[in-house]
Amino acid sequence: MACKNFWWLGLVGGLSLAGMAVAAEPPPQPIPVRQAEINDSFWSPRLQAMRERAIPHGWQYMQWELRALRKAGGQTVTGDLNGTWGEANLHKFLETVAYSLAQHPDPELERQVDGIVDLLKAAQQPDGYLHAYITNNRKPQWDPAFLDGSHDGYVLGHMIEAAIEYHAATGKRAFLDIACRAADQACNHFLGPKGKPGFCGHAELEMALVELHRVTGQARYLELARAFVEWRGRGKVTPAGPTPRAYFQDAEPVRQQRTLEGHAVRALFFATGVADLALVTGEADYRLAANRFWDSTTLRRMTITGSVGPRKEHEAFGEDYELPNNGYYESCAACGLADFALRMFCLERTARNADVLERVLYNAVLHGMALSGTNSYYQNPLTDRNNARYNSWVCCPPNLSRTILQAGRYAVATTARELYVNLFIGGRYECQIGKTTVTLAVATRYPWEGRIQFTVQTKQPATFALNLRRPEWCGAGEVRVNGQPVDSSTLTDSGYWSLPRQWRDGDQVELNLPMPVERWAAHPNAGDCRGKVAVQRGPLVYAFEGLDNAGRPAPTLGADPAFGVEHRPDLLGGITVIKGVAADGQPFVAIPFYALANRQKSTQEVWVNQSGMTPDDRWWEGNLYRRWQLGK
Amino acid sequence: MACKNFWWLGLVGGLSLAGMAVAAEPPPQPIPVRQAEINDSFWSPRLQAMRERAIPHGWQYMQWELRALRKAGGQTVTGDLNGTWGEANLHKFLETVAYSLAQHPDPELERQVDGIVDLLKAAQQPDGYLHAYITNNRKPQWDPAFLDGSHDGYVLGHMIEAAIEYHAATGKRAFLDIACRAADQACNHFLGPKGKPGFCGHAELEMALVELHRVTGQARYLELARAFVEWRGRGKVTPAGPTPRAYFQDAEPVRQQRTLEGHAVRALFFATGVADLALVTGEADYRLAANRFWDSTTLRRMTITGSVGPRKEHEAFGEDYELPNNGYYESCAACGLADFALRMFCLERTARNADVLERVLYNAVLHGMALSGTNSYYQNPLTDRNNARYNSWVCCPPNLSRTILQAGRYAVATTARELYVNLFIGGRYECQIGKTTVTLAVATRYPWEGRIQFTVQTKQPATFALNLRRPEWCGAGEVRVNGQPVDSSTLTDSGYWSLPRQWRDGDQVELNLPMPVERWAAHPNAGDCRGKVAVQRGPLVYAFEGLDNAGRPAPTLGADPAFGVEHRPDLLGGITVIKGVAADGQPFVAIPFYALANRQKSTQEVWVNQSGMTPDDRWWEGNLYRRWQLGK
Repeated sequence: MACKNFWWLGLVGGLSLAGMAVAAEPPPQPIPVRQAEINDSFWSPRLQAMRERAIPHGWQYMQWELRALRKAGGQTVTGDLNGTWGEANLHKFLETVAYSLAQHPDPELERQVDGIVDLLKAAQQPDGYLHAYITNNRKPQWDPAFLDGSHDGYVLGHMIEAAIEYHAATGKRAFLDIACRAADQACNHFLGPKGKPGFCGHAELEMALVELHRVTGQARYLELARAFVEWRGRGKVTPAGPTPRAYFQDAEPVRQQRTLEGHAVRALFFATGVADLALVTGEADYRLAANRFWDSTTLRRMTITGSVGPRKEHEAFGEDYELPNNGYYESCAACGLADFALRMFCLERTARNADVLERVLYNAVLHGMALSGTNSYYQNPLTDRNNARYNSWVCCPPNLSRTILQAGRYAVATTARELYVNLFIGGRYECQIGKTTVTLAVATRYPWEGRIQFTVQTKQPATFALNLRRPEWCGAGEVRVNGQPVDSSTLTDSGYWSLPRQWRDGDQVELNLPMPVERWAAHPNAGDCRGKVAVQRGPLVYAFEGLDNAGRPAPTLGADPAFGVEHRPDLLGGITVIKGVAADGQPFVAIPFYALANRQKSTQEVWVNQSGMTPDDRWWEGNLYRRWQLGK
Repeated sequence: MACKNFWWLGLVGGLSLAGMAVAAEPPPQPIPVRQAEINDSFWSPRLQAMRERAIPHGWQYMQWELRALRKAGGQTVTGDLNGTWGEANLHKFLETVAYSLAQHPDPELERQVDGIVDLLKAAQQPDGYLHAYITNNRKPQWDPAFLDGSHDGYVLGHMIEAAIEYHAATGKRAFLDIACRAADQACNHFLGPKGKPGFCGHAELEMALVELHRVTGQARYLELARAFVEWRGRGKVTPAGPTPRAYFQDAEPVRQQRTLEGHAVRALFFATGVADLALVTGEADYRLAANRFWDSTTLRRMTITGSVGPRKEHEAFGEDYELPNNGYYESCAACGLADFALRMFCLERTARNADVLERVLYNAVLHGMALSGTNSYYQNPLTDRNNARYNSWVCCPPNLSRTILQAGRYAVATTARELYVNLFIGGRYECQIGKTTVTLAVATRYPWEGRIQFTVQTKQPATFALNLRRPEWCGAGEVRVNGQPVDSSTLTDSGYWSLPRQWRDGDQVELNLPMPVERWAAHPNAGDCRGKVAVQRGPLVYAFEGLDNAGRPAPTLGADPAFGVEHRPDLLGGITVIKGVAADGQPFVAIPFYALANRQKSTQEVWVNQSGMTPDDRWWEGNLYRRWQLGK
């Protein structure tokens, strides 16, 4: 039998079948933040706003936390102290600062953090425990009867992540040592001679411990992460009053959970922890569970803007297809989905996972943070009326800033023989591919234009596959290597143009993604979107703000809205607007969803009526959203 | 650190966490049909009806097929010949006969089959190809332009299965040799020097080839099964006209298919083939795909009676939660779901999979076949009016009979150290557990009563875990070993009471499953069931036939319908009826869904209005159906 007929066997050993390759080699690693030097007309202003506005603005909200730390460290303080979960905000803020330092060294800022590290060290208890609120209020550590309220694991998890990133940014070990001691206390508390099963009701520690295991090589951190996941659904903790156990992802053991349920942020952090365990342990059951959670979330419970968690009660996921336009959709849940998507890409290596990452990042996450970098939204509905950004400091602002500052990490990942480009962000990415260091320079005006130019910079020829994501929104697309178009066989089942070759210094790759304005429809089960379309161009979902449309909340679109685009450098930091003519003959202007609510109060709508739209009874084949065209 | 806190690590090496154990040892094997000696008040009459009524009745419908075989073998024949897919009916019928012979030797019946085997041998082409319709009509073998119509693979698959079972029942090799030669021709056609990628649009060959690989040890059969799965979604065949590619499960590569779509029978056979590949190859991607198909089907697209495929157009799956009570629900799809469920149990070892197996077998499958054994339903709606069983012979009758005759195989499975009991059917099961042969004797009046008595019969003490399924419908349940109740820790996450011990001859286990009449509600997304309940007792879904209720189609239930049960040996072969009082004060009688339409024409309803029912906005946590009680 000739080999040609066993072509699919070739794929097994090759690059194109994602799942099969997983077994064969270690999963992709996202690039460290410090190795991504972003220089991009779209992202650079956003990173700058985090650095120059969000961080200086954020300090004022750290005072409760710092006061509490001082008190826990034995100082006498006056004034209000933080609440139980507030201490996580300090750590999310420090993680934000760490990313900023990794990209833009700033000795004065670093000195400020070092001062806080000193406070943390002083506040750390002799046994290693470090949660000032609990210490100051003489509450029990890791109180199992206070599953929801204590947030021990949530705060510790964020501390670990901040410490890891501060170490990565500065090379200083003090904060990391503090975090390790606190993590050791947790390990001892749960896994030690007097320990007993339990877990924190707000997931977060799981993924932080897996990361700490990666950084330190210590098995105990992985074991505690695994235990926190395994102990769920076994009645190992006392439920906090009438709250349903599904709120904590505790209704069933992880292998029996078929959907991702409960408080959306907790649920996504939990799912991310499960995916992390799958990545590190290679265990098939964790991979299966992570995929169940992923499908449940992204195929049936995610808005077109990448938001999740529509219910105000319990800040929770709803049922399948429960996607009200006026839903809750907390910003932190969007941040959580971005991190979950990154893990799922590493696990499955399919463009589909990074498609969600792009959707949530360019829409829900950026919408959560005002252009100014100082205001933010807690909720991100798809229809709104006259709501201004609020200026209080709950959990979302430092979560949004730490997510946005990780843009470079989300963009590029490597294995020993592959370089994946998932997001198209201009800059220089220093990539470790096996034993070779290669720099990928990226130039683009994405998301406004679909042309992306890549230049390989390498001291010596390097053999690897450059895998460029084909975005889900892109029907076509052209790739050229040193000016020569590549053929369609380079596009893999996994949704990447895969270019394996020996790359030489100066090699050029150009990706051209046509970027028409398109209308998207939602699955007929999503009742709130029935008869409506959303307008999308490239990765950006657009929305209608009354301000741009003489106060009219939203147009009804006709068969051909005569869509046109215009780049407006003057407007909202520079955006491309979509113009057209509504069914009633009135002109309309749409702006990116992320740019809403940055001027005065107004109406806001994503889904708009489409005349002539009929129920689509074709098979949706597992899609939640898809392109729509009249009569097709 | 004390071992007691690593209790979950113990599970990894133990018996209770299904998925983890998969990696550690070979999957369970269902018991061969001939080793299950059924002696059961519920099932014995059904097996007898297949043996004494369905088989004799079926011969008349074989005449077209046998005439076609004679013609293909060079004989001159007169009269109508079969159509393209009809030949599969002959093989399903022969498989039915094989199961009957395995359980009840019958030399005359065996002689008849041997005569057919001679005809098959004569009709087989020199290259091994054997499909009389194609040969007689001089059509191209494996015509890729006739994906839907040719049914080459479908017919060959059923031939292989019949041949394997006839060999298992009689020890005779002639039929199996013919099937192997035909399978070799297929391997050569697709994988040989002049072969080219393609597959049959009606899945079936995939699972048959995996089974043939198991029986013969030949790698090529597994390779072709894998190729038929892998070639889907790659444009390797010419679509049959305007039929959507999803109809053939060909819209996307298997790893990219997120839901099970298209023609329900084809889809389930395809999914079963994927699960078989996962079982034999151990490949994680196939396991993930099989689980996606399983969740898609059983959590969102299955009626409470275990039926699938509501759409008449394309005999297809609908969208999630598209579960109209007057849907199509072909009997063959129910048979396919039973086989898929068995594979999924072997893959995951969770009771949940066997719960679906029980639901579909005791409801949809038995409903498809009349009590007489000679009539059947092609469609199995949950509401009907005055439809009699039809008496034509399409694809379902021999599929139903071969499924019903496999009851023993569905009931029990073994690994090298476990004996799983999935269905509670009285009889004697000769089980190979590692190197030990153990007979499990089962006595019960299930499904009418919930007491099941097991007796271990073994020549020497045997160490294994007896794993008894806890049915999903069972809230409580008690297990006794030699009269002593076992504690709750024996109930695993996977839903089995697991009893590992050294078993001695005569050891007794008793399982008591309380069997109250219960009302079940459907997920709020299933619009046709809104405001309604279905009545279930044990594994049986009940229904209301006008005949028993003075012509009233269905009662509206009040808060307390005062349910009572009465066993009626005289009625419909002996059934337990449910009685009660409707909201309007009228008495009602419900009979098992499977027993509907066995008298004169009447109305039939499964879902009935429930007064006082309010929308349930709790989290359904992935459940499609769950118990309902007013105010809870």
